[in-house]
Amino acid sequence: MPLTPDQQAEVDALRGETYQTRRATVPALEEILYQALPVLDHGFVRVIDYMGDDAAVVQAARVSYGKGTKRTRDDAGLINYLMRNAHTSPFEMCDLKIHVKLPIFIARQWIRHRTASVNEYSARYSMLDTEFYVPEPAQLAAQSDANRQGRDTVLGSEESQAVLALLKSDAEQAFDHYHQMLNRDGDDNELDPSRSGLARELARMNLPLSAYTQWYWKVNLHNLLHFLRLRADAHAQWEIRAYADVLLDVVRKWTPLTYDAFMTYSVGGAHLTDEGLEVVRKLIAGETIDPATLKMSPREWRELKATLGITD
Amino acid sequence: MPLTPDQQAEVDALRGETYQTRRATVPALEEILYQALPVLDHGFVRVIDYMGDDAAVVQAARVSYGKGTKRTRDDAGLINYLMRNAHTSPFEMCDLKIHVKLPIFIARQWIRHRTASVNEYSARYSMLDTEFYVPEPAQLAAQSDANRQGRDTVLGSEESQAVLALLKSDAEQAFDHYHQMLNRDGDDNELDPSRSGLARELARMNLPLSAYTQWYWKVNLHNLLHFLRLRADAHAQWEIRAYADVLLDVVRKWTPLTYDAFMTYSVGGAHLTDEGLEVVRKLIAGETIDPATLKMSPREWRELKATLGITD
Amino acid sequence: MPLTPDQQAEVDALRGETYQTRRATVPALEEILYQALPVLDHGFVRVIDYMGDDAAVVQAARVSYGKGTKRTRDDAGLINYLMRNAHTSPFEMCDLKIHVKLPIFIARQWIRHRTASVNEYSARYSMLDTEFYVPEPAQLAAQSDANRQGRDTVLGSEESQAVLALLKSDAEQAFDHYHQMLNRDGDDNELDPSRSGLARELARMNLPLSAYTQWYWKVNLHNLLHFLRLRADAHAQWEIRAYADVLLDVVRKWTPLTYDAFMTYSVGGAHLTDEGLEVVRKLIAGETIDPATLKMSPREWRELKATLGITD
Amino acid sequence: MPLTPDQQAEVDALRGETYQTRRATVPALEEILYQALPVLDHGFVRVIDYMGDDAAVVQAARVSYGKGTKRTRDDAGLINYLMRNAHTSPFEMCDLKIHVKLPIFIARQWIRHRTASVNEYSARYSMLDTEFYVPEPAQLAAQSDANRQGRDTVLGSEESQAVLALLKSDAEQAFDHYHQMLNRDGDDNELDPSRSGLARELARMNLPLSAYTQWYWKVNLHNLLHFLRLRADAHAQWEIRAYADVLLDVVRKWTPLTYDAFMTYSVGGAHLTDEGLEVVRKLIAGETIDPATLKMSPREWRELKATLGITD
Repeated sequence: MPLTPDQQAEVDALRGETYQTRRATVPALEEILYQALPVLDHGFVRVIDYMGDDAAVVQAARVSYGKGTKRTRDDAGLINYLMRNAHTSPFEMCDLKIHVKLPIFIARQWIRHRTASVNEYSARYSMLDTEFYVPEPAQLAAQSDANRQGRDTVLGSEESQAVLALLKSDAEQAFDHYHQMLNRDGDDNELDPSRSGLARELARMNLPLSAYTQWYWKVNLHNLLHFLRLRADAHAQWEIRAYADVLLDVVRKWTPLTYDAFMTYSVGGAHLTDEGLEVVRKLIAGETIDPATLKMSPREWRELKATLGITD
Repeated sequence: MPLTPDQQAEVDALRGETYQTRRATVPALEEILYQALPVLDHGFVRVIDYMGDDAAVVQAARVSYGKGTKRTRDDAGLINYLMRNAHTSPFEMCDLKIHVKLPIFIARQWIRHRTASVNEYSARYSMLDTEFYVPEPAQLAAQSDANRQGRDTVLGSEESQAVLALLKSDAEQAFDHYHQMLNRDGDDNELDPSRSGLARELARMNLPLSAYTQWYWKVNLHNLLHFLRLRADAHAQWEIRAYADVLLDVVRKWTPLTYDAFMTYSVGGAHLTDEGLEVVRKLIAGETIDPATLKMSPREWRELKATLGITD
Repeated sequence: MPLTPDQQAEVDALRGETYQTRRATVPALEEILYQALPVLDHGFVRVIDYMGDDAAVVQAARVSYGKGTKRTRDDAGLINYLMRNAHTSPFEMCDLKIHVKLPIFIARQWIRHRTASVNEYSARYSMLDTEFYVPEPAQLAAQSDANRQGRDTVLGSEESQAVLALLKSDAEQAFDHYHQMLNRDGDDNELDPSRSGLARELARMNLPLSAYTQWYWKVNLHNLLHFLRLRADAHAQWEIRAYADVLLDVVRKWTPLTYDAFMTYSVGGAHLTDEGLEVVRKLIAGETIDPATLKMSPREWRELKATLGITD
Repeated sequence: MPLTPDQQAEVDALRGETYQTRRATVPALEEILYQALPVLDHGFVRVIDYMGDDAAVVQAARVSYGKGTKRTRDDAGLINYLMRNAHTSPFEMCDLKIHVKLPIFIARQWIRHRTASVNEYSARYSMLDTEFYVPEPAQLAAQSDANRQGRDTVLGSEESQAVLALLKSDAEQAFDHYHQMLNRDGDDNELDPSRSGLARELARMNLPLSAYTQWYWKVNLHNLLHFLRLRADAHAQWEIRAYADVLLDVVRKWTPLTYDAFMTYSVGGAHLTDEGLEVVRKLIAGETIDPATLKMSPREWRELKATLGITD
């Protein structure tokens, strides 16, 4: 369970209070506000706050005095138009603030997205909890040969068990020695009054990249969609996709029209080059293509055939 | 009056509806939500939406599960600490979205602040309203000799009247010819069916920099304070300070603890160099200072004396 | 001619000096360094400095100790791969610094690109030169009905002459009154010793949006390409495209492999949605399409047919 | 030694070639270009490229056609003025690109500075070298009680030896198991043909935060100074200050006038609040201060006395 009883009580207290507001409000998002949506073995995503909704995108695009438009159909048409034509600035007018708990090696990928605000739990200031990520056996895959950045088939049972044992015992030992160096037990009580204990900012360097950290992260809708385009993609590491998938669902609840436009015009489909379009035009005209006459690389030709559903 | 009756009706409709929310809510800001706060002769600032409050700054700084702290005094102490020590990231966790109507020459200063989101009314897409800024006589000041970027004493009545007459008649003529080139009257009706009318994206180039434009602008609290530090400053042009002063008051309503910390540790006071501090230590010890022995420039010496309230 | 003899002499002095460097150097860009490349009637682009070349993109992508790769063919392959897969960060490792002179209404579009550094000539600090943009008659086009943001056919000779006369006389009068209010002639000499003269920061509001301003602008290659994708596009206003076209040629000289990859994978071609690809697959299979069965809008269907070269 | 012979040969090859350029060139920086400046036990900073010099700051501030000013004294005066008055944009017109090797726990602090470009060595794509940070005994300090984020006195010899032994053995074991999971030895050769080996993107999670990573980092001078103000400060962790100190020296070589202005007006000295200035004025006038009458906190009063050199 990702939250302790104390933490859950704090969340429940927040969820128990409601206020009157004149601001744009999204009931489907209010429904899950503050809740810990579980990800991986100890991680979560919690929606802390949000600003705006689909209508706020329209309202900003029109620089309007009142609501954007009256009818949902008009809003959808405009949002589709904005998404198709890369008029991205109105999507910056909505914001999402989340609390995320995630393994450090995933946090290091996540933080590469610079156009967001972050407050991370400080391991200089406080001791880290003894929590680290151990993958499910189904996720323990071999290095891909075709894709230097990816995984391939799942490891056999024996190799898988050996890997899990190493990951667990090394992380446990690292945390154990972390406490020893700090001269503190897991509850931050002193262990040995005769020792000083190492500074937290130094002791942390012994922890593995699988250790969990947490942060508050605020991002506007445009930059969140950019994050999701890259991190909910099949080429992203499975562990960050687990977070991206939860966030995709949050976007679907929050701004359903924008979500649909995003899935249609940005995530789905494919970009064809001029040469790719020329190939398509010939194929439609019933001509055959001799790959040797193409300027594109063999890899691009394979990808184009896959995109067009062409089998040799 | 900055709003037309139709616009005011749209604003009233928005203000008439309230919703339930679990989000952090600021009653003092709800009170003025959507209202046009007048600035200059035709401009305004309207608060459209906001995210967070003082407690949200604390909550982010602590990466907490519930509210930041229980007591206002603790919140104030932490916020003062953050402000004094330039721990700026928690202030990024609050956002403000405003609708602004402002003269183009002020918009050009404003837009230099890059860390914000903007949607501007498009004069390619729509015709601009016939509205331009004419200063009050009290604002018509002569060029300062001491400060190449500033104003000095107010012009005499005769010169002042001549300037006002030119500003008005030139702007009126420019808008008149704008309509003529567009082949449209001020209500966007065709003037002469035998003419095509120039494209809007071209005709606009005839308008003066005093013409009003408008935009939606969204900024986080940290960057808003940076904007205010520069634009509510005595060195800023009076016209942009008029907007900054309204926004300062919005910040005071929205996040009063942050406002106080900002006024105390960022706006107020002065930065002294090492040499300046050395001078202070000597003065406290009762020594006298020979300016000829200082490395600082004569201008810096004058400023230091003013800061310390020293008269020759 | 965009430069005065004094300005040209300063440019020539800079061009006359050369230095030894160990840095990556691009002879084709050195060739045009500091020169004013003319744009519109009084504008220009001057390349002031640059950092990196195609090899620097490769070097950064590999985080290498020496040069990126040995062979141009390998560099091209990697650069194509990066461009196709939106691995954009290595393109941020090159920088371009330019000096631009441009009409204010174009500067207002340009500045919307936030991820760049700007120093603009200050009309608070100095008087503006008497220079304003007057389009060629071939550019004086009517408002498009199909595209609310665009131009259509060129105006007839009579309407065109009338427009040009208004643009010229209004701008001349505005500058004339600008000088009168400042109590300065065009060379910044006092006109009437009995008057104070209005502060520059106020007098400028009388100038038209066609007046020229100038700035230093520094941008990395990734963000420059993003700028060019939007501003060298057929939907951009013709006047900013004139600048973008000059910059495209600068990129071609500076980083020819990146330029080719950009033109192939980013500028050229088209994005098809999943439904668009489904249509293509059916057309290749010899099926016919009933537009009534499609979810896409009539406008999207027209665009898809145009992309695929299908005539009804 | 931070570089292998192969890496050193690549560096030497780069340093052996020089080119002609018309660009602003800084001989003192050319002197150290590409060299690995050692930091900590295995880290380094290498200057890869730079754009601009002190004169380029002046040139941009003046939006000039030629060089900024003729005389160094004028340049220094203007640069001091810009620094004192927070006119920061001209400092954005210079860029530095460096190659850094640093422990991951330091990289995580470093990356929080968002206004820079980064390309990091990918542990998804390639195996990490077996290198990790082990502090000198002189750096092994106890947790500070006064400052929750800092260190205090150095550990005693016995505790220090115990800590070092744990840091070393845990890191060695983690790398050993990393190789075992990857089924690769330290030179990336297969260990056991009967096993698949875990994907690199997963195996890396077993490594400690003391492991070294490396990246290319490009930043403009303004943002570099902001980085140095925070990271060369006494409150920064000693390990990142080691990097910041090397970079301070790079700035001193690169833009000596800017360096001096930075040390005088930004790093040195202190900010006094309005109340602090009031205290100073009273002290200069020979009055005594009763701390009980002050609004500032006891901590601020202690800090003010330290700043003014007042002893009780």
